[in-house]
Amino acid sequence: MNTTKRTEISSLGEFGLIDRITRGITPINRETIEGAGDDAAILQFGSDEEVLISTDMLMEGIHFDLTYFPLKHLGYKAVVSNISDIYAMNGTPKQITVSLALSRKFCIEDVEELYSGIKLACQQYGVDLIGGDTSSSLTGLAISITAIGVAPKGTAVKRSGAKETDLICVTGNLGAAYMGLQLLEREKIAAADKEVQPDFQGKEYILERQLKPEARKEVIEKLREENIRPTAMIDISDGLSSELMHICKHSNVGCRIYEERIPIDYQTAIMAEELNMNVITCALNGGEDFELLFTVPIADHEKVAAMKDVRIIGHIVDSCMGQALITRDGNEIELKAQGWTPQGE
Amino acid sequence: MNTTKRTEISSLGEFGLIDRITRGITPINRETIEGAGDDAAILQFGSDEEVLISTDMLMEGIHFDLTYFPLKHLGYKAVVSNISDIYAMNGTPKQITVSLALSRKFCIEDVEELYSGIKLACQQYGVDLIGGDTSSSLTGLAISITAIGVAPKGTAVKRSGAKETDLICVTGNLGAAYMGLQLLEREKIAAADKEVQPDFQGKEYILERQLKPEARKEVIEKLREENIRPTAMIDISDGLSSELMHICKHSNVGCRIYEERIPIDYQTAIMAEELNMNVITCALNGGEDFELLFTVPIADHEKVAAMKDVRIIGHIVDSCMGQALITRDGNEIELKAQGWTPQGE
Repeated sequence: MNTTKRTEISSLGEFGLIDRITRGITPINRETIEGAGDDAAILQFGSDEEVLISTDMLMEGIHFDLTYFPLKHLGYKAVVSNISDIYAMNGTPKQITVSLALSRKFCIEDVEELYSGIKLACQQYGVDLIGGDTSSSLTGLAISITAIGVAPKGTAVKRSGAKETDLICVTGNLGAAYMGLQLLEREKIAAADKEVQPDFQGKEYILERQLKPEARKEVIEKLREENIRPTAMIDISDGLSSELMHICKHSNVGCRIYEERIPIDYQTAIMAEELNMNVITCALNGGEDFELLFTVPIADHEKVAAMKDVRIIGHIVDSCMGQALITRDGNEIELKAQGWTPQGE
Repeated sequence: MNTTKRTEISSLGEFGLIDRITRGITPINRETIEGAGDDAAILQFGSDEEVLISTDMLMEGIHFDLTYFPLKHLGYKAVVSNISDIYAMNGTPKQITVSLALSRKFCIEDVEELYSGIKLACQQYGVDLIGGDTSSSLTGLAISITAIGVAPKGTAVKRSGAKETDLICVTGNLGAAYMGLQLLEREKIAAADKEVQPDFQGKEYILERQLKPEARKEVIEKLREENIRPTAMIDISDGLSSELMHICKHSNVGCRIYEERIPIDYQTAIMAEELNMNVITCALNGGEDFELLFTVPIADHEKVAAMKDVRIIGHIVDSCMGQALITRDGNEIELKAQGWTPQGE
C-alpha cells in the first residue's frame, strides 16, 4: 500500500476513479472499434479468424500476498497469466477487460500503481485494455481479467490433439517461480521476527520469475516461422504434472517424461537445496511458470530439437500405459494432478 | 448455504468440481466453436458483425447478502445483469464466461445451486456458457462474469449519440428492485430479533424485481421490428439519475425529465410509503432495475408512444441547460450521479 501519498477513493468516487485510470488509453489494434466507456466494448474480427476468450480471477490472500508483492508487479502478472492462455491456444492476444474489487485500505495511488503494471503489460504484448468494472470489496483485493485473442481459422491448438509417439516439449525452465515464492515467504517470516534486510543476492532470477513473469510470445512466433504446428498445447500455471495430465486426459493418451530432461535453472536448484526440497517435485508441481507445454509429431524432431529455449522431455504413449515420470535411476513414478482446495471462512 | 446435504469441495478437488458444473453444457449458438475445457474458448463471428464485450464483478457482502438471497437466484441475476449490458448496446448476447472464488463455507451443492441459476438464465436468453475459472477465496463468494454479444456492423448503440430535442424513454418501471431490497433488509433484521415468519404478501412483485430481475430482450427486438434506432442507450443498474448523467456526459447534452412521467409500480409506491421514503428518490437513485434508458429522435414520437412498456419521460436539451428533474409543482431539481464508495478493511 502507498504510504507517501494517500488519496481516498471516496474523494474521487467511482466514476472519477474510472476516468482517472482509463485516461490516455487508446486502442492500437484494428480489431478494437470502441474501448472502455460504454455498456460494452465494440470489437470487429474477420470471418477468416477465430476469436479466443480466456478468463481468470486472482484473490488477495489466496493468489497473492501484498506484504511482498508490489502492486505494479501484480498488475503486470495478472495480465501475463491471462494472455499466456491465449498464446497456449496458438493465438495472438488483442484485448483484455479488467475488473477490480477494492476494500477501503486501498487508495487512488494504489489503484494507479496496479494499473501502471496492467498498462505496461498491455504495451509489452500489444494488447488493448477495453473496459472492466471497479467495485467495493469487504476484505482485500480481487482482480478478474478476461483476455480476447485471435487465430487464423483452424489454427488454434487445443489440449486434445496429442497422438501416440508425439514428442512432449516444454519451453524455458520449470520450478523457478515456485522457488521465488518460497524465498519471498521465508524472508517475510524472517522480517517479521527481527529487523533484517532480506538477502536476495544471487537469487534475482527466481524472484523475477515469481514477481515479473513473461508469456511465451516469441516461442509461438518461432513455431509459426518454423512451420511447426503443435498437436496439443497448454500453458504451465499449475505445474508440469497437472498440465500434462490435462493434455493426456483430453487427448486420451498416456505419457512418459524423463527426470533428467526436465529443464531446471541453476538458481532454482540452489534454492531447493537450501530449503531442503526435492527440485524435481518443485518443477512438477510448482505453479506459475507460464511456460508452454506442447506436443509435436515425431517428424518435427529435428526442428524442435534445434529451437532455442525448447526442450524435448518425453513422448506420448498409449492411454493404457498411464502417465509417468522415469527417474534418473530408471524407476517409473505415476504423475498426479494438483488443484486448489478451498480455504478461508 | 445448503444444510440438508453437504459435500466438501475438497472431496472432488478443483478439476472434479469443474467437470461437475460444466457437465451437459452444449453450445447452441453457431458462433461458439469450442466452449469450456481448454485454455480459452473458440468463437467465430462474421465480418459483417461487431462483437460486444462487457464484464462485471459481484462480491459477497457488497453486492449480495446470502442470508436472504438464494444462490440459484444469485446465479440467475449475475447473468442477467451482464447480458443487460449487451442489450443496452442494441446487441444480442451469445456467450458468457463465469469466474468464481469460493471460501470454505461453500460446498459442492452450493456451487451446483448457483450454477443452476446461471444455466437457467443462459437457457432463457439463448446464451452459451463457454468457460471460466473457479478458485479459492479467504472470505465469501466473488463472481465475475464476462458477456459476449454481437450486433450487425454499425448498429451498436452507444451512450454518446443523444442530440438536442431527442426524446428520453425508459422501459418498465423504476425503483422496484430497490424497494425489494429494502423489504428484504427489514425482514432480515426482524427475523434476527424474534422468531417471526417474514410477511411478503402483496409484495411479491418488488421481491421478484430484486431476486429475479430480467433483461429487456423483447424491447430490443421490438425496437428493431419498429425500425426505431435509439440515438443513445444504457441499462439502469445504478439508478435513472446516474445513467442519464452518463448519456448526457458522453453525448455532451443536457436533459429535462418530468417527475409525473417516471413510471412507478403500485407496490413500489406502497413500500416507499411504509418505509417513509420518497418514492421518486428511490426511482432516481435505486439501482438494479435493469430497465433500458434510451433516446430517440423526436420524429419517432408516435412510434415510441405506442410501444408497450416504454414511457417517454423527458427530452434532451442543450448542454448549457444542465440535467434536471421538473417536479409536479414545476420546480427544477438538478440531477446527481451515484456511485459506490469503498467499504470494508
